[in-house]
Amino acid sequence: MKNIKVIIFDAYGTLFDVNSAAENCKNKIGEQWEPFANYWRTTQLEYTWLRNLMDRHEDFWKITEDSLDKSMKVFQIDISMKNKLLDLYRVLSTFSEVKETLIKLKEKNYKIIILSNGTLSLLEELVNSNNLQNIFDNVLSIEEVKKYKPHPDVYNIPIKKYQIEKKQFAYLSANTWDVSAAGNFGFNSIWVNRNKSVFDNLDYKPIIEIKNLSDLNNLL
Amino acid sequence: MKNIKVIIFDAYGTLFDVNSAAENCKNKIGEQWEPFANYWRTTQLEYTWLRNLMDRHEDFWKITEDSLDKSMKVFQIDISMKNKLLDLYRVLSTFSEVKETLIKLKEKNYKIIILSNGTLSLLEELVNSNNLQNIFDNVLSIEEVKKYKPHPDVYNIPIKKYQIEKKQFAYLSANTWDVSAAGNFGFNSIWVNRNKSVFDNLDYKPIIEIKNLSDLNNLL
Repeated sequence: MKNIKVIIFDAYGTLFDVNSAAENCKNKIGEQWEPFANYWRTTQLEYTWLRNLMDRHEDFWKITEDSLDKSMKVFQIDISMKNKLLDLYRVLSTFSEVKETLIKLKEKNYKIIILSNGTLSLLEELVNSNNLQNIFDNVLSIEEVKKYKPHPDVYNIPIKKYQIEKKQFAYLSANTWDVSAAGNFGFNSIWVNRNKSVFDNLDYKPIIEIKNLSDLNNLL
Repeated sequence: MKNIKVIIFDAYGTLFDVNSAAENCKNKIGEQWEPFANYWRTTQLEYTWLRNLMDRHEDFWKITEDSLDKSMKVFQIDISMKNKLLDLYRVLSTFSEVKETLIKLKEKNYKIIILSNGTLSLLEELVNSNNLQNIFDNVLSIEEVKKYKPHPDVYNIPIKKYQIEKKQFAYLSANTWDVSAAGNFGFNSIWVNRNKSVFDNLDYKPIIEIKNLSDLNNLL
């Protein structure tokens, strides 16, 4: 890929493992920890889309808590687990290859940024708890526009910051609909497909699919 | 409930059983027919929300086919089943109590209408294949505004048609997010909870919850 100046990373699910909170509690939650984690994540995303469409914005932490409340009821998980799960969600782990890959990209002088549904304080806590403080040139939150992905206003945030062409950005996400939207917007949108998933039918097929972020070392 | 003039019914999942297409093929699809049907439905709804947010509208039939394509890949269902499933989706069955309930409501002189994500031609085919031609006073499609539920423009369609107060409408849906949005909009929003499900956290709790539509006979 040529002429890339800025690499945009989605946070939740791409850099940070959203399932790691529930996995950490699997002794207490039992075998259903993974379906529960997936349900929580799906509900959380649905609430971002639904609130956007209804024009009733709430920030990502409120939505994370609201979706957890529903998910715990559906999976009949004891309410005493709630605070533990929320605390863990503030300090989600990165996927194993993340730090090393980001350091190598930084050495090549790319600007490295986050663009996420999370609030700035949530994103800073994730970055700090994973010792990534010196990696990112910018951490951008949708709170700047109060719309959630995949609203085009969100993908326009980095354009306003850097004033360069869309094709000078690479966009990395593990969320298929996010890859589609960023590609429709005009970014070089790359799909991080860790689990051999099936892509979406939303007017865009990714130009490049990688199995994890370490594949970026050969691409960029 | 007093002063109700018009009763609005959601179509897919409320009057018509969206799982009946896959259920009809359960001999060929096997045990996974129900998770497959749920996945298809979830993907279909997600595509309506995502396309709305990306401002890339396609009609409900295109989205139904696109979401079926993805779901068949995920569940590794043979592509030869595709046309059969789509044909069945055009003639979904009603839930068992629907016709009798609608006839009784009509006898009480309520206006009875549909407000749905489906196109007019899809909705007419559903109505006709279930012999409900003489029941509905109006069949309204989101195609009039080219936005999907839960966008407020959709819920405004019946207001424009009838020029009466929001509180003179009862709104019936089995879809929890749709009940929330219609309630937030100002309708008397009633939740048809057939499967003892958990409600959503989207700023609205339904004033009335019923286990199926026949409960309306005591309410209206």
